[in-house]
Amino acid sequence: MTIDDFIQDDTPADEVDRRAAVLGSLADTVRDLVDATIRTTVPNEQLLSAQADLADLVTLLRANQLPGPASIRHNSAPTSWSWGNAVIGLANAIAPPLRLIRNPGGVFHAEVHLGAAYEGPPGLVHGGVSAMLLDHLMGETASASRGTIFTGTLTTRYRRGTPLGPLRLEARITHEEGRKVFVAATISDPEGVTVEADGVFIRPASEAIQPEAH
Amino acid sequence: MTIDDFIQDDTPADEVDRRAAVLGSLADTVRDLVDATIRTTVPNEQLLSAQADLADLVTLLRANQLPGPASIRHNSAPTSWSWGNAVIGLANAIAPPLRLIRNPGGVFHAEVHLGAAYEGPPGLVHGGVSAMLLDHLMGETASASRGTIFTGTLTTRYRRGTPLGPLRLEARITHEEGRKVFVAATISDPEGVTVEADGVFIRPASEAIQPEAH
Repeated sequence: MTIDDFIQDDTPADEVDRRAAVLGSLADTVRDLVDATIRTTVPNEQLLSAQADLADLVTLLRANQLPGPASIRHNSAPTSWSWGNAVIGLANAIAPPLRLIRNPGGVFHAEVHLGAAYEGPPGLVHGGVSAMLLDHLMGETASASRGTIFTGTLTTRYRRGTPLGPLRLEARITHEEGRKVFVAATISDPEGVTVEADGVFIRPASEAIQPEAH
Repeated sequence: MTIDDFIQDDTPADEVDRRAAVLGSLADTVRDLVDATIRTTVPNEQLLSAQADLADLVTLLRANQLPGPASIRHNSAPTSWSWGNAVIGLANAIAPPLRLIRNPGGVFHAEVHLGAAYEGPPGLVHGGVSAMLLDHLMGETASASRGTIFTGTLTTRYRRGTPLGPLRLEARITHEEGRKVFVAATISDPEGVTVEADGVFIRPASEAIQPEAH
């Protein structure tokens, strides 16, 4: 993947920021709807009525739309944005979205609150969701200041169930060998580590100039 | 996790089936909305108006709701259902949902079509989404006819990018050692395998009588 795989978009920065705010706010309400759909106990007749209204809103949003997935966009800065991303995309209601913070020393972390939509066993985060979030955090950690990178192998070890609610994720590079970057990460609840992961990430053999992406 | 962690629910079977149909259909429209929100290019003013209407629908659905996540419910059959599950939950718009099919010989498979909401790199399935779906399929494979089971370790190897679109997942038990069950799985696009995974699943030390769950 090089910058040629991204979509060039030279919309002025202030318009991009305004769009991000509006789309992100809409997606937050869609996240709220996802949760409400899982937990609602109102009668079937009301659900059918709500569904009809919802379908009208979908039609409205689809009056003008991208022909396919959102992809990753970049401007000439080059700054890139991936609003559709399944883990960090502000416009993607599947994404919590995870907000990654880079700390001095190269450690990345994220604080996230996972609700009913991320459940696997009763009251616990789905193990696959834990793997998904770790994959993204670790990929970003590996690619920071190193350009685009792909996941080679990801190993996730489950120490105990991860409760729904407030969680902290952390990742750091442990070492590098040639094109391989090794990353270690954890998920913790307020009581301590629940999931550990190791990842091997691989830089492409030939790299073009490119914005960070994962 | 034993059956005591599930919620006893002796709603008559035909009512449960009717509710599943209505909730599943509503969630399908929410899935459509998630995709439309990612891809819409209609003006900001229309998005703000749509968001207000959407908030009203959320309020309607929340008029009566479960106090927390959906959990797993069971009746006295015992049959269990997990409509809120992040991977297979029919009421959860985050879930594609994956529909698992058990074949003679113990191989499980699933056919799924992943759209814009599951994107990572441009046009490709997010690596974390692949790990999430495999985790679930492998857990179900490990627990079939063996009762509740937990993921111990999951290792995912990415051979190449997985394109958005139609995909096939397959999993099978390779061997067992004491309480450990070893499972191998793949994701394939029409051209062949894109992701491989190995999992070690662990049966609880003491098992109560329980319906299958993961």
